[in-house]
Amino acid sequence: MRPITFTIEKEIAGNISGTLARAGVLSTPHGNIKTPAFVAVGTKADVKGIDSTQFPELGVQTIIANTYHLYLSPGEKLIEKAGGIHKFMGFNGPIMTDSGGFQVFSLGEGFGKKISKLSKPEKESLDASAASGQGERERIPSPVFWDEDLATSHGKLAIVDEDGVSFTSHVDGSLHRFTPERSIEIQHGLGADIIYAFDECTSPAADYEYQKEAMERTHRWADRSLRAHRGNIEKNNQQGIYGIVQGGRYADLRIESAQMLASMDFDGYGIGGSFSKQDILGILDKVNSVLPKEKPRHLLGIGEPEDMFIGVASGIDTFDCVVPTRNGRNGGLFTSKGKIQIPNSEYISDFGPIDADCDCTVCKNHSRSYIHHLFRTHEMLGPILASMHNIRFLTRLVEKIRQSILDGNFEEFRDVFLSQYKLR
Amino acid sequence: MRPITFTIEKEIAGNISGTLARAGVLSTPHGNIKTPAFVAVGTKADVKGIDSTQFPELGVQTIIANTYHLYLSPGEKLIEKAGGIHKFMGFNGPIMTDSGGFQVFSLGEGFGKKISKLSKPEKESLDASAASGQGERERIPSPVFWDEDLATSHGKLAIVDEDGVSFTSHVDGSLHRFTPERSIEIQHGLGADIIYAFDECTSPAADYEYQKEAMERTHRWADRSLRAHRGNIEKNNQQGIYGIVQGGRYADLRIESAQMLASMDFDGYGIGGSFSKQDILGILDKVNSVLPKEKPRHLLGIGEPEDMFIGVASGIDTFDCVVPTRNGRNGGLFTSKGKIQIPNSEYISDFGPIDADCDCTVCKNHSRSYIHHLFRTHEMLGPILASMHNIRFLTRLVEKIRQSILDGNFEEFRDVFLSQYKLR
Repeated sequence: MRPITFTIEKEIAGNISGTLARAGVLSTPHGNIKTPAFVAVGTKADVKGIDSTQFPELGVQTIIANTYHLYLSPGEKLIEKAGGIHKFMGFNGPIMTDSGGFQVFSLGEGFGKKISKLSKPEKESLDASAASGQGERERIPSPVFWDEDLATSHGKLAIVDEDGVSFTSHVDGSLHRFTPERSIEIQHGLGADIIYAFDECTSPAADYEYQKEAMERTHRWADRSLRAHRGNIEKNNQQGIYGIVQGGRYADLRIESAQMLASMDFDGYGIGGSFSKQDILGILDKVNSVLPKEKPRHLLGIGEPEDMFIGVASGIDTFDCVVPTRNGRNGGLFTSKGKIQIPNSEYISDFGPIDADCDCTVCKNHSRSYIHHLFRTHEMLGPILASMHNIRFLTRLVEKIRQSILDGNFEEFRDVFLSQYKLR
Repeated sequence: MRPITFTIEKEIAGNISGTLARAGVLSTPHGNIKTPAFVAVGTKADVKGIDSTQFPELGVQTIIANTYHLYLSPGEKLIEKAGGIHKFMGFNGPIMTDSGGFQVFSLGEGFGKKISKLSKPEKESLDASAASGQGERERIPSPVFWDEDLATSHGKLAIVDEDGVSFTSHVDGSLHRFTPERSIEIQHGLGADIIYAFDECTSPAADYEYQKEAMERTHRWADRSLRAHRGNIEKNNQQGIYGIVQGGRYADLRIESAQMLASMDFDGYGIGGSFSKQDILGILDKVNSVLPKEKPRHLLGIGEPEDMFIGVASGIDTFDCVVPTRNGRNGGLFTSKGKIQIPNSEYISDFGPIDADCDCTVCKNHSRSYIHHLFRTHEMLGPILASMHNIRFLTRLVEKIRQSILDGNFEEFRDVFLSQYKLR
């Protein structure tokens, strides 16, 4: 039996409004995830500002960590030595790791500016060096693995070829290389319950021709990732693997990508490459209609309240997004009436809770006035409490969405929520 | 009956080794403090990085907030409007507020450099302006209250006169004035259980003559603080007041100060002005022998483990110190074998807890390797977990010290602890 199984409890597919919403249970070696679920972002094996011991009270069922970041520091070998990512971060619940594709292409000097295809001689040079350098974590000696003159003349942070991607660390500029096999190898070392195939994330500015080429390469990488995973019997019994649908902003490519990946034996699917969420939200339902309905679907990197309703209605089961912690650190707080900026002077003597409907410890114990004071006086407790509240706000919203699906009133719940929730 | 009462449960005074150690219970309107006790520093109505809902699990019985900081932001009127500091910060246990004396003299451009006595004409100018400006929180118009040319020519941040201190905010350079009456008025607004008389903190470099003059002024301010407090019947029934022993590094002045304050009707005593802790630790026992033994004694701003043993042996009941949170933010962690710097590379693959003897949630759930990783990758969770552990380490140490006094083996416990605890 596969380590990851998905059971649909209730679905509302095919009714008049055409929603594909469903509630289910995603079982993993470290416990079940009731879906739809918000997946907290734990990039470096921690959710920023939140201790893993707080996850249960905040309704965090599962987190997604990042292969690129953990590979760079502390390295997958150290985490493996620690007994895997669960032991390393002190969380015994379900964990996902993203493949690192997004970060390889997006971090550093500027996504979309420094990535390009290689000319044929460049590619051959990299292919040759890759053969000897692959799998190394150390700073790679430039004569063997990387033509520094070439890199300098390109000014590139990431160079794609058929076999993989050579890139520079955003931390110290050191040179590294990921291939599908290497990404899977790292994810095996990290030991998350759900891992992702290695994909190429294209620039939103890429033209159709390049987008198609990158998508087709991503499909070949998906196949290689899947083989690398299934070929490791031990890890294949402990970890599930998701493929990632690509295709940028082109609906026909997205559907083609979903069709191709659906034909592969993945345990679930991620919808990726969402640099501009408007591009993807509009075609989610079409993509999900192509994907096998008995398998779980994860929307990568999108999770504002209004997006989650669109996602759920389009058949998405899980979401991850940095908004609760990133907004929280900057004083942006979710409320049932929309987001507020707590450092604004209007909250200086507002002695009510952040959100009267919220059940989190912050709302039960602290006022807007107090959180405002913490931000105004630059106390780190401000971002901490804001992040806690925001995470709970989102996990609770998804809990309510799930309940509304089970109760058969998802659309009613959505309409009431969105009529009160002001977008700014 | 006074709002603050102190009961000594056991004392070891007068035995062969001459220790004055005692265990007791300090009762306040917001609950009891079992002494000896470590008082967590909550300068701006929060302990840095720690939510007040975590206090019970961390063994934090009480905190000390700061009058100077809370006066500047958000202002005592706002906190009073919020229902007092307990409601404002969401902590229903005992709270102290320091008088602001230390901060007025120590913050900003550099303690000990910019403070001096006024010449007579300068003093008259300030006295005249003080009469109109006192009690104002707003930025004070310079012609009325403060001679900007004078201030500029002095380059001073704090100017002392008989009536009080004029000072500039370390936040925005605005001009303010504290007198003993104003400090008490602010502390009445904040509403802590234990408030402190307003004192002058002298530079460690001050000569004997100035130290004596400042001490005598502090005694007059203590009397005025006490009258201002006792004169407010409502507040006097809700809040206790401590006087602060001064006298700098001169033993005879410290004893004179203790004698003078002992003759006043304070509810307890703080030992203050500890810019150089070596100066004060050596004469603590003499100071405490002069102070009335039935009243509680607080050592202001000193609380390293080795200091607490000296303090307790000298008859101190409570301590406050920023070390657990300040060290914690910088990666300095207390262990029963001494302090360690967790970002050091020796801890990269140390999978044991910070301190095997510690009962805190951090030691129970996380390894040194994980905390090291969080510091190395600049995750805010590192300072948070480090602060949590350090606070629990100190509250637990003092709990053990208390128990050793009750069990009659304080000195044995001290000797065993200190033989293992390496000072660096």
